[in-house]
Amino acid sequence: MPDAFSFHLLATDGAARRGQIATPHGTVATPAFMPVGTQATVKGLAPEAVRTTGADIVLANTYHLMLRPGAERIAALGGLHRFMNWPHAILTDSGGFQVMSLSQLRKVENEAVAFRSHLDGTMVELSPERAIEIQHLLGSDIAMQLDECLKLPAARGELERAMRLSLGWAERSKRAFEQVPPGRALFGIVQGGDDPALRAESARVLVDIGFHGYAIGGLAVGEPQEAMLRTIGEVAPVLPADRPRYLMGVGTPEDLIEAVARGIDMFDCVLPTRNGRHGLAFTRFGPINLKNAHHADDPRPLDEASRCPAARDYSRAYLHHLVKANEMLGAILLTTVNLAYYQELMASMRAAIAAKQFDAFRNDVTTGWQRGDLALS
Amino acid sequence: MPDAFSFHLLATDGAARRGQIATPHGTVATPAFMPVGTQATVKGLAPEAVRTTGADIVLANTYHLMLRPGAERIAALGGLHRFMNWPHAILTDSGGFQVMSLSQLRKVENEAVAFRSHLDGTMVELSPERAIEIQHLLGSDIAMQLDECLKLPAARGELERAMRLSLGWAERSKRAFEQVPPGRALFGIVQGGDDPALRAESARVLVDIGFHGYAIGGLAVGEPQEAMLRTIGEVAPVLPADRPRYLMGVGTPEDLIEAVARGIDMFDCVLPTRNGRHGLAFTRFGPINLKNAHHADDPRPLDEASRCPAARDYSRAYLHHLVKANEMLGAILLTTVNLAYYQELMASMRAAIAAKQFDAFRNDVTTGWQRGDLALS
Repeated sequence: MPDAFSFHLLATDGAARRGQIATPHGTVATPAFMPVGTQATVKGLAPEAVRTTGADIVLANTYHLMLRPGAERIAALGGLHRFMNWPHAILTDSGGFQVMSLSQLRKVENEAVAFRSHLDGTMVELSPERAIEIQHLLGSDIAMQLDECLKLPAARGELERAMRLSLGWAERSKRAFEQVPPGRALFGIVQGGDDPALRAESARVLVDIGFHGYAIGGLAVGEPQEAMLRTIGEVAPVLPADRPRYLMGVGTPEDLIEAVARGIDMFDCVLPTRNGRHGLAFTRFGPINLKNAHHADDPRPLDEASRCPAARDYSRAYLHHLVKANEMLGAILLTTVNLAYYQELMASMRAAIAAKQFDAFRNDVTTGWQRGDLALS
Repeated sequence: MPDAFSFHLLATDGAARRGQIATPHGTVATPAFMPVGTQATVKGLAPEAVRTTGADIVLANTYHLMLRPGAERIAALGGLHRFMNWPHAILTDSGGFQVMSLSQLRKVENEAVAFRSHLDGTMVELSPERAIEIQHLLGSDIAMQLDECLKLPAARGELERAMRLSLGWAERSKRAFEQVPPGRALFGIVQGGDDPALRAESARVLVDIGFHGYAIGGLAVGEPQEAMLRTIGEVAPVLPADRPRYLMGVGTPEDLIEAVARGIDMFDCVLPTRNGRHGLAFTRFGPINLKNAHHADDPRPLDEASRCPAARDYSRAYLHHLVKANEMLGAILLTTVNLAYYQELMASMRAAIAAKQFDAFRNDVTTGWQRGDLALS
C-alpha cells in the first residue's frame, strides 16, 4: 500500500531544514525543487529525463489542465500520473494564480472567481470546492487551497481584502478536502503581500484551521528580493516546525539558498525551464548566456565536472549554434542542464544542512558564481 | 585504426539487396535509412536518442552548415562528429539541392553556382571543388558530388543541360576528392529527370568516372510515385552491383519498400522528423494523425508491441493533448516514434532479404497499413 502523506524533519542548521516528505507516489527529499509541468509536461523533456535530473516531484497547473484537456477527461484516463507517465509525486496548484495572471477578464467574489478562458473565451467558474474537486480528479499528491494572489506593490486595503478572502477559501478548501480519500495532502497559502501584520494574521488563522503543509504565496510578484526575504524571515518562524513550508514561484539559485536559510522546504519556478528555452544556462560559474557571440568558437563544455551529460558532452560553441539556429535541441539541452543544476544545488544544500555546514556552503557557492564564466579559460 | 570505406553485398532476394557499409565511424547495415540532421542536429532529439532508434548513420546538410556556423569553424572545433556529439557515420550532401530550393537568387554557371544566403543575404559561391573541401572540413564519412537538381516536370532541354553540367561537376569532384585523406567515400549522383535516355547516359558516364557509391538524385521532386519507381527500376540495374545505391530525399514507408525491391540500399528523408513535428505518427497500422479530435479520450498507446518506449508508454489521448497544446514533448515523442518505425522497417527488410522472404514481407506490411488505425479497438 502506498504511503500516506507525512513529513519528517531530519536535521536543522540554523533556520535551514533537511527533511523528507512521504507521498502516495514516493518520497521527496527536502529542501526540494519542483520543476513546473504546466500542461502535464515539463516543457521539452520526457518524464524519465526529468527524473534523471534528480526531481522527486513536479508541479502541474490546475488552471491549464481544467481548460485543456479537462480534469474529468484526465480522471477517466486514469489520473494525471498515468496521463503524463510520471509515476512520482505531483503537487498541483489551485488555479488561482493563473486566473489572475492569464485571464483577461475575471470577477472575484466570495463564492468563487469567474474568468474568461484564454483558450476559447468561454466563461469558467472556479470555487474553492471546485479547485479541490479538480485536484482530486487529477489525483495530485499535494493539493493547494484556492487563493487570491495580488501583484506588488498593492494598496494595504486590497492586500487585506484578498488575504481575508483567501482565508475564507482556506476554510472551505479544508472542508471540501474531507471528501478526498486519505493519504493525500492539502496545503494552505499565507497571503498578505509585504505587510507584516497581514502576513502574521494570515499565518495564524491558517495554522488554526490546520493543514498538512503551509505555502507562502504572493511573493516574487514584483517586490525587491530584500522585501521577499524579509517576509519569508517573518512568516517561516510562525509556521509549525513539523509541517513543510513551500515558497511558491521562487526563484533564482540565490533566492533558493536564501529562502532555505530562512526555513523554506519546497520551491517551484519556471526559471530553469523558461530560461533554458531562451538560451540561458545556470551553472556553478553563474548564469551563461549562450546567445552571446563570444561562445561561437569555444570548445569547452558548460561544466566538465557536472554530473549532467548535457553540461559535459557538448561544447559551448555547439550550444551557441543550436540557440542561434533556433533548434529544439538547444532548448532541450539547456533545460536539462538547468534542471540538473537546480537539483544539484538542492542536493548540496541538503548535504550541507545535514553536516551543519550551511553557511560555509552558501559562501562557497556564492564565490563560484562571482568567479564567473571565464574562470576556466 | 578506423575502417576505410567499403561495401559488402551479403544477400539478395530478387533485386533487393542486403549489405554492409564500413566507414571510419562504424558500420552501416543496408538497406539503411539516414535521419536528416540539417543543422548538425536531428530536430528534437539528442544524438543518443537518434542512436537508440536504430540509426547507424545520419545526413547533414553542407548548405546549412557552410552558412552557419561555417565549415572552417566546425573543422577548428574538431569536425562535425565531435561538434554534434555523434560518433557514428555521417553522410553530407553537397549543398546543391538546397541552393536550388532555399536560395531566392542564384546563378548557375559551369564554373560554380553563386547564390544569396537565406540567412543574411550575402552572395556565396559554391564550386564542385569547394563542396568537396567543405565536406572534408566537416569530416564526413561519405561525401556527395555537387550537382544541379531540377524540379519535375521540366523540359527535356533543361534536364539535359543540368545532367551534363552535373557530369562535368562529377569529374571535377572526383579530382578534388583525391586531396582528401583516404578511407572516406565520394558518391556520384545520377541525374536526367524522368527521361530514360538521359538517366542511362548519366549513369554510364558516372560509372566510367568511378565512385565509391552512386546516388539517384532528382526524384521525389514533384513527379508521380509511378514515374519515380520506373526511373529507379531503369537506373539501378546499370549501376555496379558492388557499390551502394542511394536514393536521395525519399520517402514514405511505401516508397522505401518499393525502392528496396528495385535494388536501392540507402535513403534519407525529412518525412519522419517533419511529420512528427506536425502531429503525424508512422505506425504498423499506417499513418495516424494525432491532431484528430477522436484521439482525445483514447487510452491506447500508438503501438503496444513496438520496441520504442515512446510508442508504448504514452496514450494517444496524451499525444493528442501535447500536439493540440503545441508542447515540444509532442514533437519529441512523435519524432522518436517515427524514426524508430523507419528503422524497424529497414531492419525488417534486411531480415526479409536475408531470409529470401521479401515479397511475403512486403505483402504483410502493406496489409497492416491497410488494416488501419482502428484495428485494435
